[in-house]
Amino acid sequence: MKFKLIFLFLSSFYVTIVAQSDEDYLRKIYKESLTKGKSYHWLDYLSNEIGGRLSGSLNSELAVEYTKKVLEELEFDRVWLQPVMVPKWIRGGPEFSFIEVAPGKTIPVNLCALGGSVATPKEGLKAEVVEVKGIEELKAMAFTDVQGKIVFFNCQMQVDVISTFEAYNGCVNQLFDGAKEAAKLGAVGTIVRSMSLRLDDLPHTGAMSYGITAINNRIPSAAISTNDAERLSSMLKIDSSIKFYFKQNCKQLNDVQSYNVIGEITGAQYPKQIITVGGHLNSWDLGDGSHNDGAGCVQAMDVLRLLKLIGIQPKRTIRIILFMNEEKGLRRGLEYAKFAKENNEKHIFALESASGGFIPRGFSFQGPDYKVSQIFKWKKLFEPYLIHYFKKDGIRADIGPLTNKSVLLADLITDSQRYFDHRHASNDNFDFINKRELELGSATMASLVYLVDKYGFNSTEYSSKVKH
Amino acid sequence: MKFKLIFLFLSSFYVTIVAQSDEDYLRKIYKESLTKGKSYHWLDYLSNEIGGRLSGSLNSELAVEYTKKVLEELEFDRVWLQPVMVPKWIRGGPEFSFIEVAPGKTIPVNLCALGGSVATPKEGLKAEVVEVKGIEELKAMAFTDVQGKIVFFNCQMQVDVISTFEAYNGCVNQLFDGAKEAAKLGAVGTIVRSMSLRLDDLPHTGAMSYGITAINNRIPSAAISTNDAERLSSMLKIDSSIKFYFKQNCKQLNDVQSYNVIGEITGAQYPKQIITVGGHLNSWDLGDGSHNDGAGCVQAMDVLRLLKLIGIQPKRTIRIILFMNEEKGLRRGLEYAKFAKENNEKHIFALESASGGFIPRGFSFQGPDYKVSQIFKWKKLFEPYLIHYFKKDGIRADIGPLTNKSVLLADLITDSQRYFDHRHASNDNFDFINKRELELGSATMASLVYLVDKYGFNSTEYSSKVKH
Repeated sequence: MKFKLIFLFLSSFYVTIVAQSDEDYLRKIYKESLTKGKSYHWLDYLSNEIGGRLSGSLNSELAVEYTKKVLEELEFDRVWLQPVMVPKWIRGGPEFSFIEVAPGKTIPVNLCALGGSVATPKEGLKAEVVEVKGIEELKAMAFTDVQGKIVFFNCQMQVDVISTFEAYNGCVNQLFDGAKEAAKLGAVGTIVRSMSLRLDDLPHTGAMSYGITAINNRIPSAAISTNDAERLSSMLKIDSSIKFYFKQNCKQLNDVQSYNVIGEITGAQYPKQIITVGGHLNSWDLGDGSHNDGAGCVQAMDVLRLLKLIGIQPKRTIRIILFMNEEKGLRRGLEYAKFAKENNEKHIFALESASGGFIPRGFSFQGPDYKVSQIFKWKKLFEPYLIHYFKKDGIRADIGPLTNKSVLLADLITDSQRYFDHRHASNDNFDFINKRELELGSATMASLVYLVDKYGFNSTEYSSKVKH
Repeated sequence: MKFKLIFLFLSSFYVTIVAQSDEDYLRKIYKESLTKGKSYHWLDYLSNEIGGRLSGSLNSELAVEYTKKVLEELEFDRVWLQPVMVPKWIRGGPEFSFIEVAPGKTIPVNLCALGGSVATPKEGLKAEVVEVKGIEELKAMAFTDVQGKIVFFNCQMQVDVISTFEAYNGCVNQLFDGAKEAAKLGAVGTIVRSMSLRLDDLPHTGAMSYGITAINNRIPSAAISTNDAERLSSMLKIDSSIKFYFKQNCKQLNDVQSYNVIGEITGAQYPKQIITVGGHLNSWDLGDGSHNDGAGCVQAMDVLRLLKLIGIQPKRTIRIILFMNEEKGLRRGLEYAKFAKENNEKHIFALESASGGFIPRGFSFQGPDYKVSQIFKWKKLFEPYLIHYFKKDGIRADIGPLTNKSVLLADLITDSQRYFDHRHASNDNFDFINKRELELGSATMASLVYLVDKYGFNSTEYSSKVKH
């Protein structure tokens, strides 16, 4: 009898120590990330040892090699490179520009070529300036107003919206389509106010497109800092005949081969159900790409490691994908989606982090309602970590090509207030990464992956096992 | 008849344009703060033109003058200075310190005196080191183990808690009480690991106390950077006989007179019901005190201005209080509480911002349940601004002295991840302030003050007017 009681006591003790709730698992994931996370260490290497990773560049290939090596050391079941052809654009030597107030009297300007732009003539380009607030204003102008001039797009990101991405979307078309539209009206070049909410001296680059503009009609396009945009605008109000000069040396080369870096652990129960977690490995060249999107890559890389650390053997196949060439054309996403289709793979969930390594606030989703509402039931599990934002309001560009009726796509939402202070500028660098914020992001991603892997999206399986 | 219809139409139109919901008012407050906020401009002056504002210092008096002038220009009904006596401690010349591995072989250390500490002897202080993880470990030691040595408090802030304030509270007693306890065991000095979660080279100062230790028994106390703490600890493991040297020149002087700066608008309907909004004007001296607590001051200063801008005439008296000497003894809070009592004032609500000008996350409350539950009903009004945290989990030290049964105290909660990277160190400066984050904080405070002013805490008045 006594023996029996001891046995009962011991077995109930055993049950107590092994039966862990989702709350326990999330607590462990956050703890492991904050105490033993690797994301900061890897990002230090990517940022400080490699640096900016323009697609097609030597640095981008070094980043492919490095991250592949790291994933291999993590003992995934499979690590491979998926070949993708990427466009290759080079900046060339330093850019140079000024406002010419009068012959011989100049004021220097902080400028950088936009990605994809052609160079100026070797001696640079000097012309009068016509300022517009955006493409619509330009389109309403006559050929004679624009011909022979540099069009200055000075649309400001709207300050009084809370999401800076919304502010960005409000005028990014001036950057992407500005040169194409200005060329139609005979402009000789375009300069664009940097897409930043902050007044400072840093020019922010970004991808522009000539669309179907014939090669001979392509005009050079550059960004100037917000302070310079303010100054130029003020000066134009006083004297509309002042000239702007810039010289840039960039060039579009032929496409080159590059790679998406992929690592996976095969699911123990449902190997054909695939969960992907990703970021994009390429960056712009002015900074070291720490926030955009070195952070997203290292956060994704740490997800499987964190699950391993807390003793999770995934039921489903979990795949880390570091995409190449997100910034210019999303080709990598297309290539991966093609691969997934050819292999008859069933992607149930795709998560990406591409909004900078700032404090995580939650997730944004796109996909079938039943999956979204299932995920929303887990929201309260995240509240102790100050993760409150769960919205079905679409995802950003990156994993778009995977879209089909059944897959649920998700973005990690990080606090957006400081993102555009750094994005595509020289201050997108490791100094502006906070270790804890980065690690909290990894933990937040790993936690959602843990839940999706555990419960899948089979609603009956889900309801029979979970009570919240 | 026709005339009547037109009149009806016009009057209903009139009602439509004037009847604005709380949602509308909050939207306007956030918009005004992000487009016309003054907080960043004022903080630029406080930080870059004045700088660190150690209580009793010339800078602190300049800050009193400046903020008084600003409040006066805002045309409050009344602006005044409330005299308070404050302790005056000066750092003196630069501190200097090193680890002596062997005679003549030294490694420099980043060190700063703790506020309130005595100086070392003129030639400095050199002694062997005894490392402890905290006060409890020290108390368990024998006199002979400690006598004649420098006690090195190396308790690390706990990394795996989400609130960095919780991590701070876990070992701040080593800083405040360390010297007092070490002196009892015959120590000649103490050095403390900086209260920061980050590994870097910056020493963080802070207030320490000798309690009732006799003047002759007071030993000098300093903080060293986290990197130096790690290094020293490693070296002590190899050789426990290495020595530590430091020289500091600080001094406690007699108390001097200073001021709380107060401005108010008298309530139109309930002038005797008082709502206070505050921060503390004094700071430490190593940085310029931008986050701690210049940010809180300028945010509080902008609250009434924002309400004015959107056309609110407060029903209740709203008072901005910039407290002096929060860091060392909370005397200012006591003085104000005494004043409030003497004037038979009924404080219904006191809000403070003192956690840095980071992205606002919500509020923490302390006070009567009926007030807290009333405030919680407004929570959803704040969600569009990503303000999710409403908790009754106590307030920080600053407005504590106002506590009585009826007043509701509140802290603005800002994101805490980066706060201790800067707090009390030389990098608590304006470069690390983000304009939007600061302005979102002002707007969040103004929004809550708007609601409390409008509805008060009379539950019948409240329930008859609001439907959420």
